[in-house]
Amino acid sequence: MSSFDLRLSVLRAAYRAGTLTPRKLIGDLLAKAAALNPEFHLFIHLLSDAEIAPYLERLERQDVEALPLYGIPFAIKDNIDLEGIPTTAACPAYAYTPEQSATLVARLIALGAVPIGKTNLDQFATGLNGTRSPYGKCRNSVHPDFPSGGSSAGSSLAVALGVASFSLGTDTAGSGRVPAGLNNLVGLKPSKGLLSTAGVVPACRTLDCVTYFTSTASEASELLALTAHADPLDAYSRRNPPSNDRSAFGTLASFRFGVPSQLEFAGCAESPALFAKARALLEAAGGEAVEIDFAPFVEAARLLYEGPWVAERYSVVGELVETHPQAVLPVIRDVLAKAPAATAVELFRAQYRLQALKVICDAQVDALDFILTPTYPRPVTLAELERDPIGPNSLLGYYTNFMNLLDYAAVATPTGFMANGLPWGVTVFGRAFTDQSLLGVAATLQRLSGVERVGERQSQLEQAT
Amino acid sequence: MSSFDLRLSVLRAAYRAGTLTPRKLIGDLLAKAAALNPEFHLFIHLLSDAEIAPYLERLERQDVEALPLYGIPFAIKDNIDLEGIPTTAACPAYAYTPEQSATLVARLIALGAVPIGKTNLDQFATGLNGTRSPYGKCRNSVHPDFPSGGSSAGSSLAVALGVASFSLGTDTAGSGRVPAGLNNLVGLKPSKGLLSTAGVVPACRTLDCVTYFTSTASEASELLALTAHADPLDAYSRRNPPSNDRSAFGTLASFRFGVPSQLEFAGCAESPALFAKARALLEAAGGEAVEIDFAPFVEAARLLYEGPWVAERYSVVGELVETHPQAVLPVIRDVLAKAPAATAVELFRAQYRLQALKVICDAQVDALDFILTPTYPRPVTLAELERDPIGPNSLLGYYTNFMNLLDYAAVATPTGFMANGLPWGVTVFGRAFTDQSLLGVAATLQRLSGVERVGERQSQLEQAT
Repeated sequence: MSSFDLRLSVLRAAYRAGTLTPRKLIGDLLAKAAALNPEFHLFIHLLSDAEIAPYLERLERQDVEALPLYGIPFAIKDNIDLEGIPTTAACPAYAYTPEQSATLVARLIALGAVPIGKTNLDQFATGLNGTRSPYGKCRNSVHPDFPSGGSSAGSSLAVALGVASFSLGTDTAGSGRVPAGLNNLVGLKPSKGLLSTAGVVPACRTLDCVTYFTSTASEASELLALTAHADPLDAYSRRNPPSNDRSAFGTLASFRFGVPSQLEFAGCAESPALFAKARALLEAAGGEAVEIDFAPFVEAARLLYEGPWVAERYSVVGELVETHPQAVLPVIRDVLAKAPAATAVELFRAQYRLQALKVICDAQVDALDFILTPTYPRPVTLAELERDPIGPNSLLGYYTNFMNLLDYAAVATPTGFMANGLPWGVTVFGRAFTDQSLLGVAATLQRLSGVERVGERQSQLEQAT
Repeated sequence: MSSFDLRLSVLRAAYRAGTLTPRKLIGDLLAKAAALNPEFHLFIHLLSDAEIAPYLERLERQDVEALPLYGIPFAIKDNIDLEGIPTTAACPAYAYTPEQSATLVARLIALGAVPIGKTNLDQFATGLNGTRSPYGKCRNSVHPDFPSGGSSAGSSLAVALGVASFSLGTDTAGSGRVPAGLNNLVGLKPSKGLLSTAGVVPACRTLDCVTYFTSTASEASELLALTAHADPLDAYSRRNPPSNDRSAFGTLASFRFGVPSQLEFAGCAESPALFAKARALLEAAGGEAVEIDFAPFVEAARLLYEGPWVAERYSVVGELVETHPQAVLPVIRDVLAKAPAATAVELFRAQYRLQALKVICDAQVDALDFILTPTYPRPVTLAELERDPIGPNSLLGYYTNFMNLLDYAAVATPTGFMANGLPWGVTVFGRAFTDQSLLGVAATLQRLSGVERVGERQSQLEQAT
């Protein structure tokens, strides 16, 4: 099985040099993906030769210089529409075949990127672990006893296993960050409204974001700059301010960052030292760490699943649950069970509480350049999830669930490895529209921690075997 | 009964010249208010000599030049806290005595303004007519067959009848604009979050605004500039951008304004010509009228009372309704009847629909300098409200109900009179944080329509009789 360094800059150079063609690369990647799928279950649908032909033929009529993403292979979480290919949201009974691609997918294709397949996910993007799918459980890319993380499970694996340069996930409660942390990837959960959600199956429409998985923060920065556009088809779309353009992706000279005064590691022996190392890297880079009160963030996080926001998910899936309960996984039905009874009065009261918490959290965020946290307290095992599909899943969301409720941007980035080989990483977050600045911090962390060139290292390892 | 021109500039000049003292003025005004109250029911509580003494004594230790609102009498809608005076929200069973004033009231007092009383309102600020109060129905200031308008009924009368320079109302669905229109006043419904709602009994917390009633747009501009401050006690508080400071209160040279392509006058014979006159005034001032599609605004308006937003009101009053139904007026109970059954799913769906409508409405608003509408299709009579307390009330909100849902700023301003003497006026509205610019348009309309110096004219009339 051939391997490649799939970073944007590397592929671009190879195409320009004429040492590689999209047709050759994509053919090899599809073969590799097909070989990986029985073990990892990362794809629900891999594009057939006939399905991928139009994209390749179009590229062959174009010049590599004319398209910024010429021949770049990408994978699409299967709750995001690709024209002519079924969208399942990991629920066969829900499936439909869209006549047009999601706005963002269409834009990426117009820029030259090539879709290779639709990836597996926790059903209806409800989960953070990657095992809640009738299309198979997604194991971790490194360690077989651990899950990929989810809900954007297959999308994280597509990049981590080297079959796509980047992939699209979605992130309502952490689905674009938890799998990034578990698979040594950068996971950009952009500011709400920056990437169009038109053509995306909603989880919580007021919170959903489309995300990028990449090997490096620099690639995520480039993709965001290319695709952050106000979309009239998405009522929650927001215009990217000039302060958040590519020039904000840089290096902070002297800065102050927050760290929770009380950290939750759920008994993990290794996580404290790994987090301390990430903090020390930032201090060495000129940062001053400032302890913050994390309690209001945690309280906001709890609102997402313990409060009436589950009604948003129910507004999408409820009719199917009521008419065809067997079509929906039992764990998803359990998560949604409280939703029909939630009242509008309860929702308003929860929204008031959230707003009060936002004022407290914002005051801390505004006093600093960004906040640094672990991406999750500790990894959980597939065996743990087998015994209890809810508790360990919730644990994974401890540092992620509040992010969209509080309207923050976040980047999960790798910073090290645990003794068992599992990737470990942190998340940096800040106010909406600070995405590019946060990506700059992530790039610094990748560079200083020595885990920056993941894609290349990974393929080098593969070539050596 | 002595009468005065109570405009800010006039009182300030009199104080500086030493021809008037706050003690003399306030004493006269309290006497006048007491004399008016049996007919108009405008005050629920007029401050006693003992209650008002500390405010006057403080002024006597200060220099008139030191306080921008030195000795300016104002009235407070009785859903806004004044330290030591009961807040009733027009429901005796709900009453409580606050230990501190609402942030805005405290600020006005610190600036030198003198509170003279708490004004009558539609119970729990739920209504647009002024008759829904156990403290008496508020008749119109000009014509005895018509209501004052509400819910800020007494506050509008306090300024219209010349017992306060300005007054505080609240406006969730039109309560600060409808009574302004009916009583020849300027009603400023500022951008949400500009004036603190801390210490205000909520109607719909996500929508509520505190408003100013004044005789002139210039006074409202001055008051807004003095009191628009982010308040940490109000979770929905927003910072006023520099673009919305006093310098934005000016005259537009050449401008484009929207008018609904289909106007609703509910069969009123006079309103069409009065509206056409207001439009012509703006055209004469250099404006180009552009027809807009008003249907999405009307659809948004309907969400407020026909949709789950009534649950916000219920979240405030519901417990009282459940435990002491007789304590709440039957009409208020009727309005709230659907609220307990509204589900969170319904609320989310309504919020999605609102967001979709906002995109459509915003696109029209952004293409123009402001939108001009009547303030209401037609006045309704007390007799009509007696026969049907809901329908005529809803009619009054046709042009106002959508404003806070869509996050717009609005100014109601007088532009003429009907044959029966009733004041008639228009509303100009635009995006949040265009308040001062809108007040500039209102000032132009007042000047060109010849109804600008209301306070003086009114007192001259009184002195002549």
